[in-house]
Amino acid sequence: MTRRLVLAAAQLGPIQKAEGRDVAVGRMVRLMETAARRGAEVVVFPELALTTFFPRWYEEDLSRADHWYEHALPSNETAPLWEAAKKHGIGFHLGYAEKTPDGHRYNTAVYVHPSGETVLKYRKVHLPGHSEYDPVRKVQHLEKRYFEPGDLGFPVVRAPVGENKVNLGILICNDRRWPEAWRVLGLQQVELVMCGYNTPSLNAENRGFEAHHLRVAHSHLAIQAGCYQNSCFAAGVAKAGTEDGHELFGHSIIVNPQGEIMAQATSWDDELIIADCDLGMCELGRKTIFDFARHRRVEHYTRIVEQTGSVAPPEWTPK
Amino acid sequence: MTRRLVLAAAQLGPIQKAEGRDVAVGRMVRLMETAARRGAEVVVFPELALTTFFPRWYEEDLSRADHWYEHALPSNETAPLWEAAKKHGIGFHLGYAEKTPDGHRYNTAVYVHPSGETVLKYRKVHLPGHSEYDPVRKVQHLEKRYFEPGDLGFPVVRAPVGENKVNLGILICNDRRWPEAWRVLGLQQVELVMCGYNTPSLNAENRGFEAHHLRVAHSHLAIQAGCYQNSCFAAGVAKAGTEDGHELFGHSIIVNPQGEIMAQATSWDDELIIADCDLGMCELGRKTIFDFARHRRVEHYTRIVEQTGSVAPPEWTPK
Repeated sequence: MTRRLVLAAAQLGPIQKAEGRDVAVGRMVRLMETAARRGAEVVVFPELALTTFFPRWYEEDLSRADHWYEHALPSNETAPLWEAAKKHGIGFHLGYAEKTPDGHRYNTAVYVHPSGETVLKYRKVHLPGHSEYDPVRKVQHLEKRYFEPGDLGFPVVRAPVGENKVNLGILICNDRRWPEAWRVLGLQQVELVMCGYNTPSLNAENRGFEAHHLRVAHSHLAIQAGCYQNSCFAAGVAKAGTEDGHELFGHSIIVNPQGEIMAQATSWDDELIIADCDLGMCELGRKTIFDFARHRRVEHYTRIVEQTGSVAPPEWTPK
Repeated sequence: MTRRLVLAAAQLGPIQKAEGRDVAVGRMVRLMETAARRGAEVVVFPELALTTFFPRWYEEDLSRADHWYEHALPSNETAPLWEAAKKHGIGFHLGYAEKTPDGHRYNTAVYVHPSGETVLKYRKVHLPGHSEYDPVRKVQHLEKRYFEPGDLGFPVVRAPVGENKVNLGILICNDRRWPEAWRVLGLQQVELVMCGYNTPSLNAENRGFEAHHLRVAHSHLAIQAGCYQNSCFAAGVAKAGTEDGHELFGHSIIVNPQGEIMAQATSWDDELIIADCDLGMCELGRKTIFDFARHRRVEHYTRIVEQTGSVAPPEWTPK
């Protein structure tokens, strides 16, 4: 019997700095209604979906940035998402800034069952950018200031989604560029990776080599390779468009275990894309070319965990 | 000052089972001459470049397969390659079947300095296929029968190539699909990955999901992702065409650290492609988005080495 998952990715257009959570939540509820009407069983929203991408704004005193974080979920402002999920019987993935009761700050995402229960929680491990104000940059990217690296690893859980049980994992934005993150999920038989992002259209660190038109290609390359090499589906979901003058690219995609793009957003605004995912497709790679037990040689991978940065290789000299 | 490497990839057309090494060596010498004439400083030949792709042929008694292996390099039959390299002042990468004096068999590749000295030797770690005759398969893929997994890890060496010193690494065929292999090279600051392959156009294990037209796309996806995620160049070089009725795809490519294809072979025959590689391009990724020391979180990667096969994730049940 075919295990089919109807998957929706709900790209969000820009959220301006001055806009409250009510605006974003209202837009997400409408997208969720559309997704449910089209038969989707899960809808994936982006990273930091409730506010503007605030790590571009410097705040010397971190305690004055508290308004960007969620202190509890659902809150009064975000409750409509939980209500809509229950009403429509649809699960959802939500990225948000988390501040814990004991004062830790994470870039977090959850997958929520239609009942309102949190099924899976993940905190972003690969924080890009920097922690102090950088006078050389035209635009700051202060994720290392606003968040600690995630402390939950890369968990996978098997949970009911629509009519089937699905092995679910989460990556957030920059995580998608790191094959280590994908592999840790693959080693837990992940079938669907939900990955929200806020990615600037321009690389503020560019030193003359990276053509700006490659930004989207790199995002797609990393997601497609991650899916192919780990025999899984993914929803890569953008917050897109111009936030207070700062451009984020869109091009949200749904990708299958062969690395093929099944659906792609083409606006830089709120946009729903949807795909019928045959979960049986995850099996081909796992039983053949990427049968890990048969082919991996972990004795030769030790550098991956024993070494964080790179080291210069030995030099060869002619006799 | 720009560090420029003129890199040639020498795709080979088919080598029939009945053909001797002299035929292949003659063709390679001609390709090497062309490469030198065009100013190349290194030429990369494919995996198992001296013979037909013999792991498709079953041999019950391994000792009767000895004629497929090199027992010493250079031999009388392969010496013309060494002589041509010296004459033209060009380094070369050669894939071959190795039988050691103590009887071990490996799928091996070397990078040879124009002086004839071996600079770097690698033995294929990720052997695809199977070790016993498989009556279900239309075509055998007996690499696990004919070779032991490589025992040299993934070494990188800094060596003179043309006018510059270059950090050199080698992968062989199926290795290119494994992000672990690329990462171990990246952690040693590899700048050029030489990767030969013999890849069938059809997946003999196909169970209905993999469209044959994706075979080349998968090869390119893996190489392009490997280069982008490890800030390096690569030459992916095929043995292509129909060997005794069995089709191997071509589409050899040279890829830059942005994951872009710089040159591509479009025949299924002997064909030289060439690219000017600005080795400075390796720096952008290493200093920014893929600055490993700044961004990697090895404490969350332990599954990659502690676990060979995948494990089922825990099951979540609603309250």
